Amino acid sequence: MRNKFAAPTRAAASAAALLSLVLVPQLAMADEPKGDVAWDIVAGLTTEVGERLAGSEAEARARSWAEARLKALGFANVRVEGFPIRGFVRGIDEAHLVAPVPQHLAITALGYSAPTPAKGIEGEVMYFPSLDALKAAPAGSLSGKIAFVDHAMRANQDGSGYGPYGNVRRQGPAIASKLGAMAVVIRSAGTDSHRNPHTGATNFTDGIKPIPAGAVSNPDADLIARTFAHMQPGGKPVRLALTLTSHAQDKMPSGNVIADLPGRDPSLPMIVIGCHLDSWDLGTGAIDNAAGCAIITAAALKAQEGGAPLRTIRVLWAGSEELGGYGGDAYAKAHAGDKHALGMESDFGADRVWRVQYAFADANKPLADKITAALNPLGIVTSAGKADGGTDVEPIIAAQKLAVIGLGQDGTHYFDLHHTPDDTLDKIDPAMLDQNVAAWTAVLKIVANEAGVIAAP
Amino acid sequence: MRNKFAAPTRAAASAAALLSLVLVPQLAMADEPKGDVAWDIVAGLTTEVGERLAGSEAEARARSWAEARLKALGFANVRVEGFPIRGFVRGIDEAHLVAPVPQHLAITALGYSAPTPAKGIEGEVMYFPSLDALKAAPAGSLSGKIAFVDHAMRANQDGSGYGPYGNVRRQGPAIASKLGAMAVVIRSAGTDSHRNPHTGATNFTDGIKPIPAGAVSNPDADLIARTFAHMQPGGKPVRLALTLTSHAQDKMPSGNVIADLPGRDPSLPMIVIGCHLDSWDLGTGAIDNAAGCAIITAAALKAQEGGAPLRTIRVLWAGSEELGGYGGDAYAKAHAGDKHALGMESDFGADRVWRVQYAFADANKPLADKITAALNPLGIVTSAGKADGGTDVEPIIAAQKLAVIGLGQDGTHYFDLHHTPDDTLDKIDPAMLDQNVAAWTAVLKIVANEAGVIAAP
Repeated sequence: MRNKFAAPTRAAASAAALLSLVLVPQLAMADEPKGDVAWDIVAGLTTEVGERLAGSEAEARARSWAEARLKALGFANVRVEGFPIRGFVRGIDEAHLVAPVPQHLAITALGYSAPTPAKGIEGEVMYFPSLDALKAAPAGSLSGKIAFVDHAMRANQDGSGYGPYGNVRRQGPAIASKLGAMAVVIRSAGTDSHRNPHTGATNFTDGIKPIPAGAVSNPDADLIARTFAHMQPGGKPVRLALTLTSHAQDKMPSGNVIADLPGRDPSLPMIVIGCHLDSWDLGTGAIDNAAGCAIITAAALKAQEGGAPLRTIRVLWAGSEELGGYGGDAYAKAHAGDKHALGMESDFGADRVWRVQYAFADANKPLADKITAALNPLGIVTSAGKADGGTDVEPIIAAQKLAVIGLGQDGTHYFDLHHTPDDTLDKIDPAMLDQNVAAWTAVLKIVANEAGVIAAP
Repeated sequence: MRNKFAAPTRAAASAAALLSLVLVPQLAMADEPKGDVAWDIVAGLTTEVGERLAGSEAEARARSWAEARLKALGFANVRVEGFPIRGFVRGIDEAHLVAPVPQHLAITALGYSAPTPAKGIEGEVMYFPSLDALKAAPAGSLSGKIAFVDHAMRANQDGSGYGPYGNVRRQGPAIASKLGAMAVVIRSAGTDSHRNPHTGATNFTDGIKPIPAGAVSNPDADLIARTFAHMQPGGKPVRLALTLTSHAQDKMPSGNVIADLPGRDPSLPMIVIGCHLDSWDLGTGAIDNAAGCAIITAAALKAQEGGAPLRTIRVLWAGSEELGGYGGDAYAKAHAGDKHALGMESDFGADRVWRVQYAFADANKPLADKITAALNPLGIVTSAGKADGGTDVEPIIAAQKLAVIGLGQDGTHYFDLHHTPDDTLDKIDPAMLDQNVAAWTAVLKIVANEAGVIAAP
């Protein structure tokens, strides 16, 4: 993996080779896969749009970009379906230890953090090794204090650690608020060791007062932990200054971009495949989730090479996934009248697909076997457990009780990059992106040409 | 290498295990090497002082910390020798592309950059793939423009790429200024692919007007290059907004910390071993260069275990290396009257020593052979080329024509971290630090007990 991330990157090498002293702007990068639908989408979105935080002007530009690109690629019924969201507007992110010694900290506000005043706040830090330790703190014991929760995430291939470890981010701030904390800082829910904090939404549920909530990078969390460990008994308390001026904002505009490849038999329920167009704002949203939109879109086009399949394939580039799955909910509501058979999503980066899972009726066992056989040559195995869709297709899957196929990507390094400034194009290996497109193409060719009923368990 | 950098780090795991809900601040980290002189120095400097930019109040605190620690370790004649420097005061570092689309860029001002106004500057970007391309630009052609130099550094084990690639940073800004540029941005002289720019000093030689000068991270440089490549002919120019408010400042206080382990025969010229105490301000100066001070100091102490050697060993923790080698110059001037035999330095991180080089008189061949034989069991080989000292001992080596031994560390990943926010304690592998201390100890035991003349070629 190190080599994959090593500089000089392809873009650097090719730019140096190709761009002469006098600018030749029409040149594409030399060793990037030119004319490759998937690569062009992920390179285009990250370069020509960049970060596209849900609700922002940038997300609106991303929708326009997506609409134009999907039309140019030959999709039918390309449209934007707008909806309002409770958004989040990024402000200043700054933190430093004040005592026992001054130390700068790399921090990001969590989504839906309350803002500090512009001049910041300062307070004594209370150390909690885990979310459970925070939960066990006595009522009122954090009054006027800043809680620090030092719960370190472990990497694993299937990403299953994100559930429990991610709870520090999702639940920790609300718990600290209930205990009286003036603010909360968590160790990033991430598996890297770079000075790049991981953002992501937190939840102040009804009745709980939002407080400033931030995440520091892993090396900064180490430093805070070490600062406590190096303190002498009776020494100065650890004090932290925080300036986190981001704020939530109601009624911001978002929207889904939807496009169809019409099937030969419109009476058959369609296949809906999803990704999300919005990204967090620290990076350029390459693996999360331009890659997903690139993979599903390229595969849908490849699946119709040689002739349209029986069933319509619909691509959903959802808006506002990161801030709470608004796009998926809006889709399910707006398209309750459309007949769907099966839902799938790509939203776990751009590393290789290593397993397939199904949520199929028993009667569809032969269909599953056919798909498994088509995937085996790509190094993809079946795995125990029932497929679930991603955030953007789950609402329609739940509403219409759809069958699901899950193509599981290797997530060992996903949480090195997820929601950080480091989510940039250079982290994507074109060969791995190709493998994803090949796997999706194989699946879509089979399911979109299935004349029989495709049903959920 | 990836595992070495992988989180959760030692500090995280141990803090979670050891720090209970109620703070127990006297606990040390569980699996860090307790009571180990080298580890304690590097952990102490990074945790109890942190960044220590030359000339700053933090560097002054570092000198006090060093003085107290060297005394506590039993060194004699521990003293601080002050000198004034032309310093650099960090301000705001911000940059973004304005056109063709807005994109945030991760940037740092280079040392001795001129400040922009507080509200920043904006200009059209001229693209140069290399320093040579910049040099070839016609006089005046950059008038009112911002130069971008996209020269990507390659990693190599002996660090020899830093000479040529580092020239983009050292010389590029002055060349751009002469061509009329309003500002200059370079691709970081670094080998990683993270959103961490690499700072470092640049040189506006006499008569050349300082201009704002910054370095963007490798992924950001990729983005700028791709932005040029994606532009349509006749499209909007690439425009950049820069706010870099750091500024140079004269007459700032710095100083060296010097300590001796007196030898049994004061008539013999001493061994001087160097490192530097100052660091860049983006990280906490773990590999650059707390590690060096840790290695030489621990080794000096180990070399006298079982009895003082014949010759005095002097440790020089130099100030203001990063801003131009002030500490080494001050040492050579202040100690012109002291008799030295040999100089050595550790200033290339904390990875393993893989080679030894000598700058010895022919008559010292047997001494070199003895040292080589002692180093072979540690996996260290001799290598072609003449040893040179580091920045902090070179002036005294040159002034007194000293012999030199160079213990070369593996620098393959050094420029992933060098001068970045990522230069933090978690990047140091205690086993590699140990190997360095063992190598230095083996060398010092031999040279400090050499009764015969030790002479330069």
